[in-house]
Amino acid sequence: MSVTTPRGFRAAGVAAGLKSTGARDVALVVNDGPLATAAAVLTSNRVQAAPVLWTRQAVSDGAARVVVLNSGGANACTGPEGFADTHHTAEHVADAVSAAGSDGWDEVGAGDVLVCSTGLIGLRLDMPALLAGVDAAALALAADGGDAAAHAIMTTDTVAKQAVAQRDGWSVGGMAKGAGMLAPGLATMLSVVTTDAVVDAATADAALRAATGSTFDRVDSDGCMSTNDTVILLASGASGVEVSLDELTGAVTEVCASLARALVADAEGASHDVAVTVRGATTEAAAVAVARAVTRSNLFKAAIFGNDPNWGRIVSAVGTVPADVAPFDPLTLDVTVNGVQVCRGLGVGEPRELVDLAAEREVRVEVDLHAGDASATVWTNDLTHDYVHENSAYSS
Amino acid sequence: MSVTTPRGFRAAGVAAGLKSTGARDVALVVNDGPLATAAAVLTSNRVQAAPVLWTRQAVSDGAARVVVLNSGGANACTGPEGFADTHHTAEHVADAVSAAGSDGWDEVGAGDVLVCSTGLIGLRLDMPALLAGVDAAALALAADGGDAAAHAIMTTDTVAKQAVAQRDGWSVGGMAKGAGMLAPGLATMLSVVTTDAVVDAATADAALRAATGSTFDRVDSDGCMSTNDTVILLASGASGVEVSLDELTGAVTEVCASLARALVADAEGASHDVAVTVRGATTEAAAVAVARAVTRSNLFKAAIFGNDPNWGRIVSAVGTVPADVAPFDPLTLDVTVNGVQVCRGLGVGEPRELVDLAAEREVRVEVDLHAGDASATVWTNDLTHDYVHENSAYSS
Repeated sequence: MSVTTPRGFRAAGVAAGLKSTGARDVALVVNDGPLATAAAVLTSNRVQAAPVLWTRQAVSDGAARVVVLNSGGANACTGPEGFADTHHTAEHVADAVSAAGSDGWDEVGAGDVLVCSTGLIGLRLDMPALLAGVDAAALALAADGGDAAAHAIMTTDTVAKQAVAQRDGWSVGGMAKGAGMLAPGLATMLSVVTTDAVVDAATADAALRAATGSTFDRVDSDGCMSTNDTVILLASGASGVEVSLDELTGAVTEVCASLARALVADAEGASHDVAVTVRGATTEAAAVAVARAVTRSNLFKAAIFGNDPNWGRIVSAVGTVPADVAPFDPLTLDVTVNGVQVCRGLGVGEPRELVDLAAEREVRVEVDLHAGDASATVWTNDLTHDYVHENSAYSS
Repeated sequence: MSVTTPRGFRAAGVAAGLKSTGARDVALVVNDGPLATAAAVLTSNRVQAAPVLWTRQAVSDGAARVVVLNSGGANACTGPEGFADTHHTAEHVADAVSAAGSDGWDEVGAGDVLVCSTGLIGLRLDMPALLAGVDAAALALAADGGDAAAHAIMTTDTVAKQAVAQRDGWSVGGMAKGAGMLAPGLATMLSVVTTDAVVDAATADAALRAATGSTFDRVDSDGCMSTNDTVILLASGASGVEVSLDELTGAVTEVCASLARALVADAEGASHDVAVTVRGATTEAAAVAVARAVTRSNLFKAAIFGNDPNWGRIVSAVGTVPADVAPFDPLTLDVTVNGVQVCRGLGVGEPRELVDLAAEREVRVEVDLHAGDASATVWTNDLTHDYVHENSAYSS
């Protein structure tokens, strides 16, 4: 159930003292091969943390052996010095992992090391603590170390998020951290996904982009995008099984979907997980645009917190999407909440009293545009007192 | 200090029983001329309430004599029956106002009546109560009735919002309701602006669009757009003073800016009014786009509630604006909060401890993009426990 489930991977998670709590805060994931295939999807925010800049460059050749991840500091908006810290970290990891040795390769260089950081913006990392943690993690690398790594990347997460997709002779494993982009300090979302399938870099990249596009990209707890978001796919080829792009995309999507759902379920301060499904759109992109407009409406999200299936706030959010983005006739809009069609043809439908939102954490909103055959689902959470508290009471 | 300050107008506000509190809830504003010039800017939401559909049609000839406004019901998503209610209201207003008489005209028809409603979505209006209120208001019309009208359009507002711009021989007056689009029930923003200048319909329309574009359109308390938002300009010509487009735009903008600032100051549940000014943009549109990204960030708004000048959340929001919308180099970003440059060149600037947000309600955030000479300001409020409470605890 982890990144070390696929063959050819070792991992570790140690406590380096970056977190004031003394919890694990440095993780390593090592690909022992034979392949060193790697791909990454990085934040589309134009303000990018040093590790994001580094990882984009390091993965550009489609190969990597190691991912190092730290919580306790984002290393974002830290200038040239912050980038030097990331560079230094990668070199140190390469040396430490090389010294620890591998059956699959002789030595790794800094360019084989991808770096992820999460924590506060605008603060330099505690480099001595981090590098000591890297040394300890290199010595702790183990074929069953995935669970320790998954714990080391947690920040405000209350549970470690891991998932596996088993296939015939090969598998995909993954871990993720983040509270659905809803936590204090901009809630960086980090994920490492591994597979022992035989995959080249182009296939890995295409599969990862397709998988993230329909999973992590459709989790939108509060519309805020981090400077550090990173999803990495590593393929070892250790199973000896060659897979098609479709097969790989399917398995990676399965793992990413499970991890994304876990992020929503653990979103800080939330009392409801809300799936907004838009049907009858002309295109999938139009469906996503409409769903995202609803999931970003504070009035809608506050109503869900109040267990009120307030369809007026839903159709008002739907109506803000420009016609060239999502063509539909507003007068035909239907809205269903947990199976009850509370709005029919932009008018009153079934009584909203039939919807009992207090009974379950999960809320399912369906909007039918009656304009085409495409559909999409975006997940969000409700807007609660605890969200405001978590994001205002603590400096970050 | 009201819509009846310019010559040629009468107004009234009465309690018709639409509000459960017994407060005033029906208002009339009558233009006795000689001119009947009218213009309106209506919500860009594709889901539009019946009164918005009516007013768009009625004002299309550039003329109107009467505006009727009711609180206690939005008449949105009420189907053909709701539109018939609005039509019926306009006819009844025309008859009642004609019966009351005027020195400036003989008779008005339904097509001379603009209609505004605010309140809950998806509920039919209490038409007997509304029409009785119209009759009472028609009998109460007075040249000093502006203040009563301003009170009758209040919903969750705690104060009536009115403003006047005095010019040489002519003036502009205005009233507005709304809690910065932040209140329960989608906080419809309604405003009626009057002038006794001699103005034709095209000039009135151009002046009103320019004024709302730089004032009401830049109040963005929670990013939620109502189905009923309406701003109307009526010109009586009673001063006999002909004014240019620039002169009219200046005076109408002055009134609208004052009213917009009053909306922010009265936003429900808010503890801070926040002005986000973006400088150094390539175009005004780029500056607005960046400012809006900041004012819509829940993480930023929650930080302000916590009196934390969290520039990391500001630059992260700035970085979400696509490069084709707002060209700039993220590495040059400066952020100043209440005069303290807390972020310089995307790195740590002055100590954030120098900023004391707890001391004042008003917060001024300045972002310098260093890409051009354009600037713009968007107002918002902080995200507070009271916002969540107001928007979740009450059905609407």
